[in-house]
Amino acid sequence: MEQYESYKNKMRQIADINGAISVLAWDKEVNLPKKGAAARSQQMATLSGMAHELFTAADFGQELTALIESNNLTPEQHQNVVLTLKDYNKSTKLPTEFVIRRSQVVSEAYHAWIEAREANDFGVYKEDLKKIVGIARETAELFGYEDHPYDALLDMYEPNAKTADLTVLFKDVREQLVNFVKILKEKSQVENDFLSKSYDKDKQWNFGLELLKNMGYDFDAGRQDISAHPFTITFAPTDVRVTTRVDEHDLGNMTWSCIHEGGHGLYEQGLSWDYYGLPLGEACSLGIHESQARMWENNVGRSQAYWQAHYSDLQAVFSENLKDISPSDFYKGINQIAPNAIRTEADELHYHFHVLIRFEIEKELMEGTLEVDDLDKVWNQKYAEYMGIEIKDDRQGILQDIHWSHGSIGYFPTYSLGSFYAAQFFAQAQKDMPDLIQEISEGNSSNLLSWLRQNIHQHGRYFTPEELCMKITGEKLNFKYFMDYAKQKFGAIYGI
Amino acid sequence: MEQYESYKNKMRQIADINGAISVLAWDKEVNLPKKGAAARSQQMATLSGMAHELFTAADFGQELTALIESNNLTPEQHQNVVLTLKDYNKSTKLPTEFVIRRSQVVSEAYHAWIEAREANDFGVYKEDLKKIVGIARETAELFGYEDHPYDALLDMYEPNAKTADLTVLFKDVREQLVNFVKILKEKSQVENDFLSKSYDKDKQWNFGLELLKNMGYDFDAGRQDISAHPFTITFAPTDVRVTTRVDEHDLGNMTWSCIHEGGHGLYEQGLSWDYYGLPLGEACSLGIHESQARMWENNVGRSQAYWQAHYSDLQAVFSENLKDISPSDFYKGINQIAPNAIRTEADELHYHFHVLIRFEIEKELMEGTLEVDDLDKVWNQKYAEYMGIEIKDDRQGILQDIHWSHGSIGYFPTYSLGSFYAAQFFAQAQKDMPDLIQEISEGNSSNLLSWLRQNIHQHGRYFTPEELCMKITGEKLNFKYFMDYAKQKFGAIYGI
Repeated sequence: MEQYESYKNKMRQIADINGAISVLAWDKEVNLPKKGAAARSQQMATLSGMAHELFTAADFGQELTALIESNNLTPEQHQNVVLTLKDYNKSTKLPTEFVIRRSQVVSEAYHAWIEAREANDFGVYKEDLKKIVGIARETAELFGYEDHPYDALLDMYEPNAKTADLTVLFKDVREQLVNFVKILKEKSQVENDFLSKSYDKDKQWNFGLELLKNMGYDFDAGRQDISAHPFTITFAPTDVRVTTRVDEHDLGNMTWSCIHEGGHGLYEQGLSWDYYGLPLGEACSLGIHESQARMWENNVGRSQAYWQAHYSDLQAVFSENLKDISPSDFYKGINQIAPNAIRTEADELHYHFHVLIRFEIEKELMEGTLEVDDLDKVWNQKYAEYMGIEIKDDRQGILQDIHWSHGSIGYFPTYSLGSFYAAQFFAQAQKDMPDLIQEISEGNSSNLLSWLRQNIHQHGRYFTPEELCMKITGEKLNFKYFMDYAKQKFGAIYGI
Repeated sequence: MEQYESYKNKMRQIADINGAISVLAWDKEVNLPKKGAAARSQQMATLSGMAHELFTAADFGQELTALIESNNLTPEQHQNVVLTLKDYNKSTKLPTEFVIRRSQVVSEAYHAWIEAREANDFGVYKEDLKKIVGIARETAELFGYEDHPYDALLDMYEPNAKTADLTVLFKDVREQLVNFVKILKEKSQVENDFLSKSYDKDKQWNFGLELLKNMGYDFDAGRQDISAHPFTITFAPTDVRVTTRVDEHDLGNMTWSCIHEGGHGLYEQGLSWDYYGLPLGEACSLGIHESQARMWENNVGRSQAYWQAHYSDLQAVFSENLKDISPSDFYKGINQIAPNAIRTEADELHYHFHVLIRFEIEKELMEGTLEVDDLDKVWNQKYAEYMGIEIKDDRQGILQDIHWSHGSIGYFPTYSLGSFYAAQFFAQAQKDMPDLIQEISEGNSSNLLSWLRQNIHQHGRYFTPEELCMKITGEKLNFKYFMDYAKQKFGAIYGI
């Protein structure tokens, strides 16, 4: 089919440009000399403009519609074109005037956020954040929605996610998880001081590389580097880069950054090169992406079985620091549950309180029932209520995240969705592979990776997150799996 | 002037794409995982195609002509447009059919060259090299020329260079340099075994960085990395990357690679950001570019004054290896003159015999007075005649260089031009700054850098190489300066 080939070539051309932008973005975070920033921004903007122009060309929508109506496509081809048309409609619903205005608002908000953080004063950022919220509301109106304006934003990150469903989900988080954590708090705390001893950075780096190799991350199709904030970025499924950071006095930072980004990286390496540039060659959603990272980081990487396989190696590398730490002490220590004002430093359970708070705030901002002026107070109240934490200043509070300053509203929920999907998928994987935990305890996660490739990676965007979850587990996302996992794991650790 | 602004914007857009291609090329040499090669080639090809399409758009030539005819431009603006029109005419003189055919021939020739090297057999490469020569002849006809087809090729690398002038120049090389080297050969040889002791690679790397810093290479506008073959690449004058290689048993390799690429890097960092994307923001020619690298590498970096400043530091780093090597022994050792079959391993004088041989061969190939079938024999004869070297096999002989397999004919002479310009410029710099050698011996080359910025870097392509040389030194390129430099320096070292 000539028409489909022409569609495919166009999509690949756009993917080539986007792949180049990703190389520039990666280099920016990993290598860029200070003075190179201005030229780099300009080069990335030029390429982005060219990709956008190609994608939103006036006749492309008609071509896509004609392709769909031709009834001449395989199911996979059909799905590619349908999803491309969805993306196209989204892209073309935003008038150029709005796109330019939005990019100005975002650019100014980002700088205001930086300044506000330096000044440790939410006041400096307030007016810009109001504009960001205004832009988000406009975006929702331009995209359109049936039930809730927030739905239009969620759909950008988690296709078909609904505010109503998330409201139910986060009600469960608020009720069940908050209560469970209260019970844990009454038990005596586990010790994790050993994680902040001095750990040689080169040795940490090498150990992290070994963990990545062991997971199955393909170093012939990627590499690891250092950056201020760990991330995963894809140039093609044959070149997926991960980064980590290494802090001499925080062994945990390097270890679970590597495993987390490794999980993202395995997903991207598992996408299809044949579908390069097409929706079926792209990840399903941010939530599903996060599920891959979280499953490796937590369900696998903080499990007793995993460290049964790897702790003796770690102990051998850092014998001075770890010789008196038993495997059981280590396992407990790396799973300490303790509240923290900062989301990115949260433990596996408290993390979802952070997301819950952001979800509630974003939803109300979109409804117009909450205004930016009161946001720091609301923020601090919620932290006091859900976590019993007193927020001491704005930098530790409402100014901690970059997301809103980037214009990203509707993004945060995908973090929790990731963990909840991870728990549900991992429960299913254990059902499907009764020897899985045994294998992991022997340092062998290859069957898990095959299961993920088979059930998740290979499908790209063919299914929506909900369809994928149904297909794999026979039911929709169900918070029960996460709570069961949490109760079993932390109940045992804290002796409940 | 609105028209000029629109021209400028277009050129900057193209420069942004080319800058991105350079980032991808850099990453390819420095970082690329094995499996990423196919996607990377495709991405680079897509971007190259887009840049080419933008630049060769049918109406662009008319726009440029109209701009020139408007008589409304400053001299700098005028020169930008005139040079752009020259580039445009070159680009559009090659029909698409030819460009595609050429790229196929080059791609096949490159692979044949790789195979031939592996087989150590020129025969494997012969037929492809014939096609390359055919393509070069066709290129010359398409570009057009007045006197000699080779002129058309030379102009791509060294604007306005003429075969007739180079013939005179290389006659001087053949007569004067060959004779001088014969005289040196009769003297007792200087010792340089100490350079191949075991030198810790990290320490070498750090020492190289110090040399770069000392030269004035701006690490806020660039960085150094490792690659198989050292190179310099520019994303913008604010981001100029250099690479080096470090061989445990060859201190010289790292040292003079760093200084050489540093010289290229300083030129690129000295180009104007205001002229980003425009001819006046580009280097004058390959020969002038090479002059910057060679001046730093040889006239500065292998001088007695330079090591007066740096030898004690080097000795301190490698005290075990160098404690018994006096400054004078070191200086002599790093300037050993001895024939070598391999161009890239040649000393400062023999280097030009290698280029001479390639020049003579290329010229005759373009005239049609020499055929590819005989090339290995001719090659080996010339090496015997000019250097007294017996070429043992094709890998050490005619298969050593990548250039022809890339389709680059007319490139080699710029290497020698670089050294000869360097000698002439450096002689002038010494006249203009009587304290220069004293400053260099104190580790201070900042006045030299300012002089280069002032006299060369800031002008970009405003002047042709010949005009630039006239402007700086009051005369055209004159081989005498190189011979004077060689006689003085090596005469002293070898006790003539």
